[in-house]
Amino acid sequence: MAVYTNLGAETLAELIATYDVGELVSAKGIAEGVSNSNWMVETQRRDGRSARFILTLYERRIETDELPFFLALLDHLAARGCAVPATVHDRAGASLRQVEGKAAALIEFLPGVSPSSPAPEQARAVGAALARVHLAARDFPLTRRDRLDPAANRATLAKLGPAGLIAIDPALADAPGWAEEIARRWPADLPRSIVHSDLFPDNVLMLGERVTGLIDFYFACDGMMAYDLAVTHAAWAFDRSGAQYSPAIGSALVEGYESVRPLADDERAALPLLAEGACLRFTASRAEDWIETASGAQVMRKDPMDFLRRWRFYREQGAAAFASG
Amino acid sequence: MAVYTNLGAETLAELIATYDVGELVSAKGIAEGVSNSNWMVETQRRDGRSARFILTLYERRIETDELPFFLALLDHLAARGCAVPATVHDRAGASLRQVEGKAAALIEFLPGVSPSSPAPEQARAVGAALARVHLAARDFPLTRRDRLDPAANRATLAKLGPAGLIAIDPALADAPGWAEEIARRWPADLPRSIVHSDLFPDNVLMLGERVTGLIDFYFACDGMMAYDLAVTHAAWAFDRSGAQYSPAIGSALVEGYESVRPLADDERAALPLLAEGACLRFTASRAEDWIETASGAQVMRKDPMDFLRRWRFYREQGAAAFASG
Repeated sequence: MAVYTNLGAETLAELIATYDVGELVSAKGIAEGVSNSNWMVETQRRDGRSARFILTLYERRIETDELPFFLALLDHLAARGCAVPATVHDRAGASLRQVEGKAAALIEFLPGVSPSSPAPEQARAVGAALARVHLAARDFPLTRRDRLDPAANRATLAKLGPAGLIAIDPALADAPGWAEEIARRWPADLPRSIVHSDLFPDNVLMLGERVTGLIDFYFACDGMMAYDLAVTHAAWAFDRSGAQYSPAIGSALVEGYESVRPLADDERAALPLLAEGACLRFTASRAEDWIETASGAQVMRKDPMDFLRRWRFYREQGAAAFASG
Repeated sequence: MAVYTNLGAETLAELIATYDVGELVSAKGIAEGVSNSNWMVETQRRDGRSARFILTLYERRIETDELPFFLALLDHLAARGCAVPATVHDRAGASLRQVEGKAAALIEFLPGVSPSSPAPEQARAVGAALARVHLAARDFPLTRRDRLDPAANRATLAKLGPAGLIAIDPALADAPGWAEEIARRWPADLPRSIVHSDLFPDNVLMLGERVTGLIDFYFACDGMMAYDLAVTHAAWAFDRSGAQYSPAIGSALVEGYESVRPLADDERAALPLLAEGACLRFTASRAEDWIETASGAQVMRKDPMDFLRRWRFYREQGAAAFASG
């Protein structure tokens, strides 16, 4: 959560002038993004109309050669009516530019706030919005491999080792065995599309019960649509710590999804295992970050136990976790 | 530069509802403020009109009992046509509220960007805007003591000690002697008002050559108006490092100021000494921060030498630094 690069007002004004969006009238660095710098930018046209955008400067982690995938995906989805921000193309037609040696993109600003305590009707709307993205992305011509599949997550846990995991919390000792089992049972033949892969409430903008924007597609990749629904289920249907499951939210999310794209029987049957895979993914990545981030650092570490608790819930409940509410 | 407190969307919406500004439609944490959290907030009224505000949560450093001074000052100046953001009062008439145990204020959003390489015409406009604030604040009924006068700054240097200063840079060894001299010669009888005290380009919003907002009044206090002009001169008329003085900017700033409030002879004569006092202040506070902030910390330390260089310039140039351009 920071602005890593300080862009002067003159540099910003010059950059904005390369787009046909009017003149720069305001730019505020916003506290979003862990691997990029973001500004909320306002412009005004000669006729007085003003417009707002998010300007992103890509700092690290996201490979620059993957940016065309992410930006083209936004345009593809926005053109098909999905609630995602479209990119702004410069006067030469490019959505990706270079500023002070870094890649930059200007994207549409969307209103809305991210719910911190979602209500079931909000989850229903998000389920439907996710299904719309899955359907709209099926003919997207580019692809990106999932780098965080169960095999990769299992390898992450193995790298940290039993001692490393137990140092975080003794309960994590179970994780490698569970991961082994998931990787062995992981389905290979469920319907695929481009999936968001990280649709936490933070990445959804809403006005009341209406989804105004799905954002932060930087984990989007080729994947099983039902797995993306399971990731979203794990991200939405629990309190932050994962100790408390909300059946009303879980059911509403799946019902909302199915109101747009009904699940096939094999997808529905796989949901509990896919949800375990989602928990494996976040447990592994958080455990890795936990160990790599010194406890004194100013970066907020996310507790891997939040997803171990969810994982335990899905193991114990099986299909019951996805019973209609 | 951070958002220290995470306010949920529901909490934000409830807070906004206590003001008569319409419904919350967007809130983005912005990367401004070192001792408070800030959000750019957008609301929409029933008739469709939208409005924008900055919501500030006060985290530390600024004494809560001084907040009424700062907020009332903004309202006083805005009511007199100064380019400062007015506060929004809640339905009960208060400009200061409590949210999750912290003081909060909603203030007007102003367009504009902070110039990073100011032009002389921009400095002229800023000088005039500063003079307008000085005149408008003369009948402001509240007062606040200057905690960073030369005596306090001299004490800070003394506390750090010769060894501490030399550890930062051997050239700082001169500073305590210079500070002694400033404190001894410091004028006591120049015209006073409430002064901004920190009018760096970062704290000015502009659209082209027009000042749209003077912001961040958290150092405002009772003080000599000519001293505030000298602080602004030191803040605007040099490159960041203080190595290069721009006579065109320095002259334009003073001329702009005098176009609204001509200086008395004794004020003009005191400017070189007052500018030295400004440099003393920033050298001392930066040296203190430099030593107190571990070099590994993620907070950006400002180099105290940037103001020692300016200080040397004013000592060497004397009245010539303020000769008309």
